[in-house]
Amino acid sequence: MNILDIIEKKKNRKELSNEEIDFFIKKYTSDEIPDYQAAALIMAICINGMTQDEIVSLTNSMASSGEILDLSEISNNIVDKHSTGGVGDKVTLIVSPIVSALGVPIAKMSGRGLGITGGTIDKLESIPGYKTNISIEDFKKNVKEIGISLIGQTLNLAPADKKIYALRDAISCTNSIPLIASSIMSKKIAAGASSIVLDVTCGNGAFMKDKEQALKLAKMMSLIGKWSNRKVTCILTNMDEPLGKNIGNSLEIIEAVEALNGNMAKDVKEVILTISAYMMKLSGKFSNISDNKKKALEVIKNGKALEKFKELVKAQGGDVTYIEDLDKFEKAPIITPVISEREGYVEKLDAGIIGRAGVDLGIGRMNKEDEIDSRVGIRLEKKIGDKVKKGSILAYVHANNPEKAENCIKEMLKAYKIGNKKVIKKNVLEII
Amino acid sequence: MNILDIIEKKKNRKELSNEEIDFFIKKYTSDEIPDYQAAALIMAICINGMTQDEIVSLTNSMASSGEILDLSEISNNIVDKHSTGGVGDKVTLIVSPIVSALGVPIAKMSGRGLGITGGTIDKLESIPGYKTNISIEDFKKNVKEIGISLIGQTLNLAPADKKIYALRDAISCTNSIPLIASSIMSKKIAAGASSIVLDVTCGNGAFMKDKEQALKLAKMMSLIGKWSNRKVTCILTNMDEPLGKNIGNSLEIIEAVEALNGNMAKDVKEVILTISAYMMKLSGKFSNISDNKKKALEVIKNGKALEKFKELVKAQGGDVTYIEDLDKFEKAPIITPVISEREGYVEKLDAGIIGRAGVDLGIGRMNKEDEIDSRVGIRLEKKIGDKVKKGSILAYVHANNPEKAENCIKEMLKAYKIGNKKVIKKNVLEII
Repeated sequence: MNILDIIEKKKNRKELSNEEIDFFIKKYTSDEIPDYQAAALIMAICINGMTQDEIVSLTNSMASSGEILDLSEISNNIVDKHSTGGVGDKVTLIVSPIVSALGVPIAKMSGRGLGITGGTIDKLESIPGYKTNISIEDFKKNVKEIGISLIGQTLNLAPADKKIYALRDAISCTNSIPLIASSIMSKKIAAGASSIVLDVTCGNGAFMKDKEQALKLAKMMSLIGKWSNRKVTCILTNMDEPLGKNIGNSLEIIEAVEALNGNMAKDVKEVILTISAYMMKLSGKFSNISDNKKKALEVIKNGKALEKFKELVKAQGGDVTYIEDLDKFEKAPIITPVISEREGYVEKLDAGIIGRAGVDLGIGRMNKEDEIDSRVGIRLEKKIGDKVKKGSILAYVHANNPEKAENCIKEMLKAYKIGNKKVIKKNVLEII
Repeated sequence: MNILDIIEKKKNRKELSNEEIDFFIKKYTSDEIPDYQAAALIMAICINGMTQDEIVSLTNSMASSGEILDLSEISNNIVDKHSTGGVGDKVTLIVSPIVSALGVPIAKMSGRGLGITGGTIDKLESIPGYKTNISIEDFKKNVKEIGISLIGQTLNLAPADKKIYALRDAISCTNSIPLIASSIMSKKIAAGASSIVLDVTCGNGAFMKDKEQALKLAKMMSLIGKWSNRKVTCILTNMDEPLGKNIGNSLEIIEAVEALNGNMAKDVKEVILTISAYMMKLSGKFSNISDNKKKALEVIKNGKALEKFKELVKAQGGDVTYIEDLDKFEKAPIITPVISEREGYVEKLDAGIIGRAGVDLGIGRMNKEDEIDSRVGIRLEKKIGDKVKKGSILAYVHANNPEKAENCIKEMLKAYKIGNKKVIKKNVLEII
């Protein structure tokens, strides 16, 4: 077997065997295949696509390219949750304590933000003291004792995926659905989950810009799950505007805690209850979706979900007094409003523009080395469908210098489209 | 302008502008674009193709990526000749002195052999003393004084093509017609030719296996010529069996000298006269093809072509006594016959198998670093259409060790297909 024959086959639209894909993944991970040969193969895959069998082979080869987290001592059915990324996406921070409070163990490794997509780990680190890189032993201990742990990618999970992901980024091959699907699923399989709820975001602020593409991706990941003996539910959610009100690291922790206090924006509530209900269902302990949603609301109302979040923060070394008194979070030095220049309804609120404006403020990184500022961000006061007057406050920009604040205001005015139509936004688009 | 956008465009089958192609060629030649990005772009070109405009841009960018040979002080219409490569292809060695003897100056840089394709330079170096790396000044001086010089690639011609050619080889992208056409034409343009006769070989021993592909390539090169203000004639020749009788470095010099003495195999004669006639026509000094062929035969008969070849050898430092007495060429230590195992007609004589067997003998290189042996090779006694008996000598293998000789005999028996049909081979397939 040699890499030239494998490249030639894919170039000519022929199906690669399981052995050929595994050969490529093993040799590329061990640096025996150079980047330029991998680049040629990835481009050929990107243009010519992959069959279902090829995608499943690729996923499993990448999943087994590094360490695999074994959670069987905790439970035979660990439910994981993953989002394909969005702006203002604080779902993990809210659903994890809800589901854990209902007796479903949460043992989750999350990523950092890259590009306009925020990362749960960056957000958690805005809580003073919260350690995201605890040992695997402590991680498992926390899950056993309090039923929840949220940490960073401590293990060397799916290193082949890491290498291929970086290469794809450097050769303009990020938007291939077979490659996205296998990348996500390989990490989830390596992270030890047997059931996975996938939040497939769709819209201006997401990777998949339209529903058709998002559906394709969702179906492909469901298929990979089926063929790899994992239970998978995909929930397509709207990412045309940011989710909820706050975008930024400490700002999203604040909104998550407010949500656990029962104070939720409409879109957050719909997405949270749906994802929680499906995670509960996949755990095997709860069956009826509508009952599950009620139970999720219950643990919010009776304070058990918030209590679970505080237990989590404490167990990971974080300062719980910040959760108890949200005013303790350090504010950005400049907080300045974005004022509407006309009257009407918010018809559009472009999550893509806001995401990029947020990165410029210092919420996220364009490159891995960029520094972030946990204080900065945006609070949206008006969202799609809201009525605004000339002079209304649309949003607040939280910035660490005046120039950045000014630029962000300009971008925010571009992001808001005020018109005459009252648009009703659908938040959960489809469940597969 | 950035390389990611260029890759993205080609991936999506959009046409690249002249500026984008030039940006890629300049930055890749100066190592500012890494191999993996070039590999991705080349693969996208290989799969998605190129428009005529793109191919012309690519050719001209590659041609101007290094030195350009200026031959205007010698003539305003230097006629060059190029073959897409074949087995036993000694055409340059025969047509150059013929055409030069008729007053058309020949100033030609040739390559070394790689793979099953022989190289004119390797063959010339089997003449003791012949220098293929003389200075450009001496090269021009020889052309001015005796009307002919044949040397190696002394100048840094089209370095972008060299880099891309090596990369294509390493990523299984050698067989793309736009890339082959632009590679050949960029070198010819950089080598200063204003008129070019292209011998497009076609068959088992050539890069283009079938006539359809060869025609495509020929048409594309003609178009590039037209758009780049070069006169181009493409002559499609048959490379199902090797050309002529001898394959090997000194063996092909011997056959070329025999041809200049008037002793030519049928296929060699047809190809030589056609190519000579079209080179003469493109020079502007001769117009009628059938007259030209007669004139070419004349300079063979009256010895002027052979005399020109001897002048060439002498001017380049070679020992002319070898040309006068071909027995002086050192023979391989083992010369052993290939015996026919049955009676019939030679229906096939696979140039691909013979080419690879020749490389194993030491005629050519699979890698640039491989050493070659100028003595070894194959002499074909029977060719397509010839009648053979059981026990007839089909060919002689000239080898430098018994094991190699034996292996070659085995391969030769595979290359010969003896059947009952008397096949008539067409040597010149089409002229464009």
